[in-house]
Amino acid sequence: MQNFVFKNPTEIIFGKGTIAQIDARIPRDVPILLTYGGGSIKRNGVYQQVRSALDGREVVEFAGIEPNPQYETCLKAVDLVKSHQVQFLLAVGGGSVIDAAKFIAAAAWYDGPDSWDILRTGGQNVKTAIPLGTVLTLPATGTESNGNSVISRRATAEKLHFYADCAFPMFSVLDPETTYTLPAKQVRNGIVDAFVHVMEQYLTFPTDAPLQDRLAEAILATLIEVGPRTLAQPRDYESRASLMWSATLALNTLISCGVPQDWSTHMIGHELTALYGPAHAETLAVVLPGVWAHQLAKKEAKLRQYGQRVWGVTTVEAAIGRTEEFFHSLDMPTLLSAYQINAEEAAEVVGRRFTKRAVKFGEHEDIDGSAAAAIIRSRA
Amino acid sequence: MQNFVFKNPTEIIFGKGTIAQIDARIPRDVPILLTYGGGSIKRNGVYQQVRSALDGREVVEFAGIEPNPQYETCLKAVDLVKSHQVQFLLAVGGGSVIDAAKFIAAAAWYDGPDSWDILRTGGQNVKTAIPLGTVLTLPATGTESNGNSVISRRATAEKLHFYADCAFPMFSVLDPETTYTLPAKQVRNGIVDAFVHVMEQYLTFPTDAPLQDRLAEAILATLIEVGPRTLAQPRDYESRASLMWSATLALNTLISCGVPQDWSTHMIGHELTALYGPAHAETLAVVLPGVWAHQLAKKEAKLRQYGQRVWGVTTVEAAIGRTEEFFHSLDMPTLLSAYQINAEEAAEVVGRRFTKRAVKFGEHEDIDGSAAAAIIRSRA
Repeated sequence: MQNFVFKNPTEIIFGKGTIAQIDARIPRDVPILLTYGGGSIKRNGVYQQVRSALDGREVVEFAGIEPNPQYETCLKAVDLVKSHQVQFLLAVGGGSVIDAAKFIAAAAWYDGPDSWDILRTGGQNVKTAIPLGTVLTLPATGTESNGNSVISRRATAEKLHFYADCAFPMFSVLDPETTYTLPAKQVRNGIVDAFVHVMEQYLTFPTDAPLQDRLAEAILATLIEVGPRTLAQPRDYESRASLMWSATLALNTLISCGVPQDWSTHMIGHELTALYGPAHAETLAVVLPGVWAHQLAKKEAKLRQYGQRVWGVTTVEAAIGRTEEFFHSLDMPTLLSAYQINAEEAAEVVGRRFTKRAVKFGEHEDIDGSAAAAIIRSRA
Repeated sequence: MQNFVFKNPTEIIFGKGTIAQIDARIPRDVPILLTYGGGSIKRNGVYQQVRSALDGREVVEFAGIEPNPQYETCLKAVDLVKSHQVQFLLAVGGGSVIDAAKFIAAAAWYDGPDSWDILRTGGQNVKTAIPLGTVLTLPATGTESNGNSVISRRATAEKLHFYADCAFPMFSVLDPETTYTLPAKQVRNGIVDAFVHVMEQYLTFPTDAPLQDRLAEAILATLIEVGPRTLAQPRDYESRASLMWSATLALNTLISCGVPQDWSTHMIGHELTALYGPAHAETLAVVLPGVWAHQLAKKEAKLRQYGQRVWGVTTVEAAIGRTEEFFHSLDMPTLLSAYQINAEEAAEVVGRRFTKRAVKFGEHEDIDGSAAAAIIRSRA
């Protein structure tokens, strides 16, 4: 096991009817920025519950945060924060809304010349941020209980990530009932996103860390059990609850303690999303089997363990195959052709971008632009 | 799944050579109370590492905290805290030293007339405590990452528990190498203690909480894997590390989120330890199979699941049998006769004490004095 530091200060308030509990957790007598996305929270009653819990407070609203939240959008919110001297952020929505709020919280108190530097440097210089709370309405990214944020910039087709200790939400409300009205495609994306998060922290090479392995396998098995059940029975509370808690624990920094991590599927997926537009989870489902096939020799032992323990199969080919079948059972494609993306062209463009940035990733730091291109090419 | 609130702010610093990292985490220029037990930390080099990390600070020492830490001992430390205006507590040792430090931290700033009330009320009135850090040298109780403390009082043969949010350590250093020199009996006790902690949160009745079940099973399977390996190869770092991390996650409040809990084995075990003296884990190993047998009808579904998933057996009898065999394989007895305790007499005394306090426990709150007596009687 590798040495590690684990700290996750986010308070999780989980269950039916818990939104009202934000009242006791947000400081009184300070201006609050309430951020959300496209307005679905107004249709499913979440907005009303939040406003009711905030009754009597000074609330500034910022709506319209888009999927793959844009830097330019965030900057408008930062202006609002500054002009209203906002002291608390409340993000109500899915991963995009919460990621945007983290960036807004960090950028508003950032004292560098250009807040894009926060993303360019991965958050290295972020020492302080406006306190943030969240009401999560889409189980997927785990951002409700970590210090990560991913922001996109349309002008340059970039999608970059930052991390900061101060970006952990102070609290996150997870009410599974708020997810009943999600479109099936978003539920599917959430299941796959959480599943791939676990894989990025688990499917590397054996390091004699049996507890971390089994914790990861516990989340995978649960997603496989409750994912399809959630899609089939959208109002089954128990499935919704287990899916929501699984997605949080998939990326709350617990299962990565002391073990190597991969993240190459995310790196390549981000590029494909930024350049061609498929949703985050859609590009992950395409890339993951390609990374495994490309790294087969180095990942063989873990692929075999995963296949045996999670699927009860004995070969690595079957482990990969069952994973793709699982994605397909959720109606999630695993090839670029599903999105009319030319694999040759995408491989060329993404490979060149990685080569230019001189980045290498994966648990062995051996995936460079050329390897990424090969992986993309294999997913035609 | 039941509604829950989960918050665990303790920072875990895990791995080889990490004790020096306390330096950056303890406020400078305030008096510190360093507490420890019987002096084993002076023999294994931990004391020297700690003092070296605290070089140049004002440190008051309080040694001699005993197993099953005594109220009277803690009060002496509270006097020291008050006379030196201590502002930070550093507990170096196992569960007893850390539990004692939590009580000292709470009692020193407690404004009620009698600090025993902290334990009598389970911590209800504890709103503030001196900040606490720990260096854990014995994986077992999980106290390094929760808000629980158990204190004994010799004069009345009581062993009571309190919980407070403010009793979570700010940080805990877990260096597996510090556990190399532990006596085999203490290692064995730690394995069983952690194992029973998981059981108290897992072995109840099904509540459609598949993730919590699998997380609990992950810890159980890991303890079964690395426990015997640790005893056989005391200097195997990887086993030590997995045992240490398993014991922490067994009781850091994660696996109990949203599920019913039992704790009757602990309630009965505490009485037996307080009255007759066997170590905490020793009485747990005696009581657990008795609770299962007594509650068989109500625990049958979970016992069956546990047997199948963890041991690969199909009957509840086999699940109980394999558990006792596991304890025996660690050289841990499971009957009162091993301690020359008269089961009839113990049943009578403990039953009467519970009846007098009018307490009922277990996940159905159906274990009263008479049921506890029957359980004890069955463990002759």
